[in-house]
Amino acid sequence: MIEIERKFLVKDDSYKESAFTQNHIAQGYLSSAPARTVRVRIKGKKGFLTIKGISNTSGLSRFEWEKEISISDAEKLLLLCEKGAIDKTRFEIKVGSHIFEVDEFHGENQGLVVAEIELNSEEEFFEKPAWLDKEVTGDSRYYNSYLSTSPFRNW
Amino acid sequence: MIEIERKFLVKDDSYKESAFTQNHIAQGYLSSAPARTVRVRIKGKKGFLTIKGISNTSGLSRFEWEKEISISDAEKLLLLCEKGAIDKTRFEIKVGSHIFEVDEFHGENQGLVVAEIELNSEEEFFEKPAWLDKEVTGDSRYYNSYLSTSPFRNW
Repeated sequence: MIEIERKFLVKDDSYKESAFTQNHIAQGYLSSAPARTVRVRIKGKKGFLTIKGISNTSGLSRFEWEKEISISDAEKLLLLCEKGAIDKTRFEIKVGSHIFEVDEFHGENQGLVVAEIELNSEEEFFEKPAWLDKEVTGDSRYYNSYLSTSPFRNW
Repeated sequence: MIEIERKFLVKDDSYKESAFTQNHIAQGYLSSAPARTVRVRIKGKKGFLTIKGISNTSGLSRFEWEKEISISDAEKLLLLCEKGAIDKTRFEIKVGSHIFEVDEFHGENQGLVVAEIELNSEEEFFEKPAWLDKEVTGDSRYYNSYLSTSPFRNW
């Protein structure tokens, strides 16, 4: 499928008040090349393997393929990953008819907080909550694959 | 699982006489790094995603994770792969109580033929057929991931 996502920085942590889920995420990359990222993720009690292609020219759409895998497989595959695993807490917040995913990074990326929304088309309207800051969609510095090799603390 | 494989060159094409299967294989790499190869394969009418780690010091054992995926997913993922897809015909030959897989390469690797046998332990005995030539186990030039970037014709 083609994934349409828009990504934003956040102004403060008031998003936490309205979060309906909160999950720990640990993830690493078997390939962090933007044209073919291969990600291993443990989210809460589930494992996932995700492959993404390069963005189209607008930076909004990206090919994505994902399969759930066992936690045990995910743990073994994480050991093979490139250095620079990502560690973060993901909050989900319902705003109007959409869901924002807000990632609060830990470790080498401590201090970075990013909100994402998934849309059905590039023009789809969505409500902007008060805590939403500047849009960074398409800025590859905010790709998790980039953060794994060039963490926020070194920016 | 840990995969124990031994790899050999072959002397002539007499292995074809006793082959019980023959399948076309097309494969590409999302990562060709030896420490974390990620391979997309179409074998006959099935698709596979396979992840391998680095060899241990003997060069015989390699971590391997594999899942069957749909042909349609495999075709989409092949489009994301690094340049240098591998195209080959695989013959399976029963010798004693083991099965040899013999890969006859095409395209940029035309002229290369490699036989592989999978074993349960590094010391396991197996019968050597007359067409088996010199062992190349652990020689990374014969990894398909290496051949995809440095094809046999350029050696």
